[in-house]
Amino acid sequence: MINTDLQRDEARYKAQGFGNEMGMVGKIGLLIVDFVNGFADPQAFGGGNIPQAIARTTTLLAEARRLGWKIAHTRIVFADDGADANIFSLKVPTMLGLTEHNPASAIVADLAPEPGEYVVRKTVPSAFSGTPLAAWFVTHGVQTVVVAGCVTSGCVRASVLDAMQAGFRPVVVSDCLGDRAIGPHEANLFDMAQKCGDVLDLDTLLSRLPNC
Amino acid sequence: MINTDLQRDEARYKAQGFGNEMGMVGKIGLLIVDFVNGFADPQAFGGGNIPQAIARTTTLLAEARRLGWKIAHTRIVFADDGADANIFSLKVPTMLGLTEHNPASAIVADLAPEPGEYVVRKTVPSAFSGTPLAAWFVTHGVQTVVVAGCVTSGCVRASVLDAMQAGFRPVVVSDCLGDRAIGPHEANLFDMAQKCGDVLDLDTLLSRLPNC
Amino acid sequence: MINTDLQRDEARYKAQGFGNEMGMVGKIGLLIVDFVNGFADPQAFGGGNIPQAIARTTTLLAEARRLGWKIAHTRIVFADDGADANIFSLKVPTMLGLTEHNPASAIVADLAPEPGEYVVRKTVPSAFSGTPLAAWFVTHGVQTVVVAGCVTSGCVRASVLDAMQAGFRPVVVSDCLGDRAIGPHEANLFDMAQKCGDVLDLDTLLSRLPNC
Amino acid sequence: MINTDLQRDEARYKAQGFGNEMGMVGKIGLLIVDFVNGFADPQAFGGGNIPQAIARTTTLLAEARRLGWKIAHTRIVFADDGADANIFSLKVPTMLGLTEHNPASAIVADLAPEPGEYVVRKTVPSAFSGTPLAAWFVTHGVQTVVVAGCVTSGCVRASVLDAMQAGFRPVVVSDCLGDRAIGPHEANLFDMAQKCGDVLDLDTLLSRLPNC
Repeated sequence: MINTDLQRDEARYKAQGFGNEMGMVGKIGLLIVDFVNGFADPQAFGGGNIPQAIARTTTLLAEARRLGWKIAHTRIVFADDGADANIFSLKVPTMLGLTEHNPASAIVADLAPEPGEYVVRKTVPSAFSGTPLAAWFVTHGVQTVVVAGCVTSGCVRASVLDAMQAGFRPVVVSDCLGDRAIGPHEANLFDMAQKCGDVLDLDTLLSRLPNC
Repeated sequence: MINTDLQRDEARYKAQGFGNEMGMVGKIGLLIVDFVNGFADPQAFGGGNIPQAIARTTTLLAEARRLGWKIAHTRIVFADDGADANIFSLKVPTMLGLTEHNPASAIVADLAPEPGEYVVRKTVPSAFSGTPLAAWFVTHGVQTVVVAGCVTSGCVRASVLDAMQAGFRPVVVSDCLGDRAIGPHEANLFDMAQKCGDVLDLDTLLSRLPNC
Repeated sequence: MINTDLQRDEARYKAQGFGNEMGMVGKIGLLIVDFVNGFADPQAFGGGNIPQAIARTTTLLAEARRLGWKIAHTRIVFADDGADANIFSLKVPTMLGLTEHNPASAIVADLAPEPGEYVVRKTVPSAFSGTPLAAWFVTHGVQTVVVAGCVTSGCVRASVLDAMQAGFRPVVVSDCLGDRAIGPHEANLFDMAQKCGDVLDLDTLLSRLPNC
Repeated sequence: MINTDLQRDEARYKAQGFGNEMGMVGKIGLLIVDFVNGFADPQAFGGGNIPQAIARTTTLLAEARRLGWKIAHTRIVFADDGADANIFSLKVPTMLGLTEHNPASAIVADLAPEPGEYVVRKTVPSAFSGTPLAAWFVTHGVQTVVVAGCVTSGCVRASVLDAMQAGFRPVVVSDCLGDRAIGPHEANLFDMAQKCGDVLDLDTLLSRLPNC
């Protein structure tokens, strides 16, 4: 039923000019959003298809390292004393527990950053808002940003939007994204495909890389 | 069916701490996103429930003027020569037709700005990205931003997200938002209510104003 | 001689409309820029009148705490592995040594932050660029930002400029600013007074506070 | 006298690690800041060495066009009704006169933009703050930004700082910069050379281009 609705919507969007495929240009960077222990745990902020997305992302990360892409990981980290509480934490107060040394805010072991990979600390959904991430990609000449992470309907959507607004071409890797609920996951994949970036599954992405 | 899914999701979100109601503080500003002729026209970028949302927003705008709120309107405006084409227009090439003097980019007559109201020209979904809007609200001491406009799943969602990330409390007026397709409209109302701002209908908002 | 030049310039600036005094409105916040051990040490990044500025700032900070202002401190902090090296560190490579646990990057003992005061980590001159600081002031309803810190010609100038561009009224406290060299200190006080904010000495600021 | 002071300061800055030469990488963009009629006119916002800087910039612009660089020009433009008045215009109220159709806000004839060159409208000193300029350079893969314009101590300094903070390598062309007063011009060239970008004269820049 949802799929039928989405197909009908997709036709309308296409008639109005949305959803053009962009392709990849220039140097590629990888952005892995919030794959931390707390979002891998259904008792904390997790659930849904997040575990499967983490598993797929291990393949993507290995490939990105092999190809020498610039790689950034994000974590939500609030100050121990809550001094940086914000509107996001007013809306979702449990976020304030994600402090620097809380294991829930640590990146999952399977995707642990290697030296030289950039770990972005943030206190809002977008990886770009209030962080030096856009400048970091610019410094390294990145033009295309491949995005994995969670959750699709929150921090991923916000980061993909901002990547696009900052002038990067986002490539959203659908099976490397996870969300605590599947309805919002699918709805946001649809929105991103129409307005923000190319949405591909991992196999399709990998098959295209030799031609980049 | 969608509603059932949303209800189940909502329970999970609540258990994880999402969807807290924030209330309104400080001075209130009104942001009307992209209610321009081209988005009121189903043959251009319109459709769905946009006409009804425009009608409801005339009431909201009149009330905002009566109360002396700072008021901002947005338009998408690209350069006549396309020099400012960007990733958004690569994804949605038809946007490039919204130039300064194209009637499609003019605000609908029923909501025409009055002198002193700020008309923000933008080339991306968010009203805040690449514009002085956040600074404008700060200059005028605004802390709560009431949002109307279209489309819910695109420029409204992006603007509400950025309002929150910029430190403002967003109040999303559900029946003053429109979208070309109802599935994305509802899905994005859900996401915003969980993570970005308070979502109220116009009657509820108006009933609360005397207590602000 | 420099002073004579500055006076002549000041007349020209005044004729063109620069240097208007703005006054303070709304809630006041205090921003203390980079008063860390490494900038207090002439063998590291210090020198000039920085020690005197730190001494004066202890009075300002005490008064700000007494008045309940929102208070933010900044530190330059690069990642231990240098992953976040940027154009600023390309221009000034020694900055990369200012890592989280290097005592040189710790705020001087006399101005040590108290719980609830916001410690902003940054990797560029401006306290606002790539940080959530503007959003933090907005969240707390701050409209006027009083600025102390070092160095006048670098991180202070950049932060005052960005405060103004973000919609806040900057008040630059001249004797609470320090620089490793006096020529640039004075030149930048002049520029800021013409184009960015009100420049006052501490006694003048304190004398005006009861009227705010 | 000023020069002696600057030389002494320069030695101290060098000992502390400032002023490293960066060189040019990647695609080059040209940014021409505020060379508009009102800043070419000593009776408005002009004076000093601005006319000479405009004359030199005609050579730079011709060369940039020949080499196919992406080119951006900025203008200060406030709304006809002053709705977008801000803190900058509170500090310098005369700026509010620079409206869209005021000849004072038009780019000087000798540097008139050609189709495809990006004309950035702004209401603050920095060409990047509250504009899509950083995104535009990213979209076109620019990594090095060559800067000409006026005034050195105001909009140029702010734009060079922001270029650097946004991840671009600024190249400041000293004789293509002008200011209404020479003291601030020289003081800001010094600051930029120490902390923001490479400062070269036009002949030196042109001699290095074949090797880029």
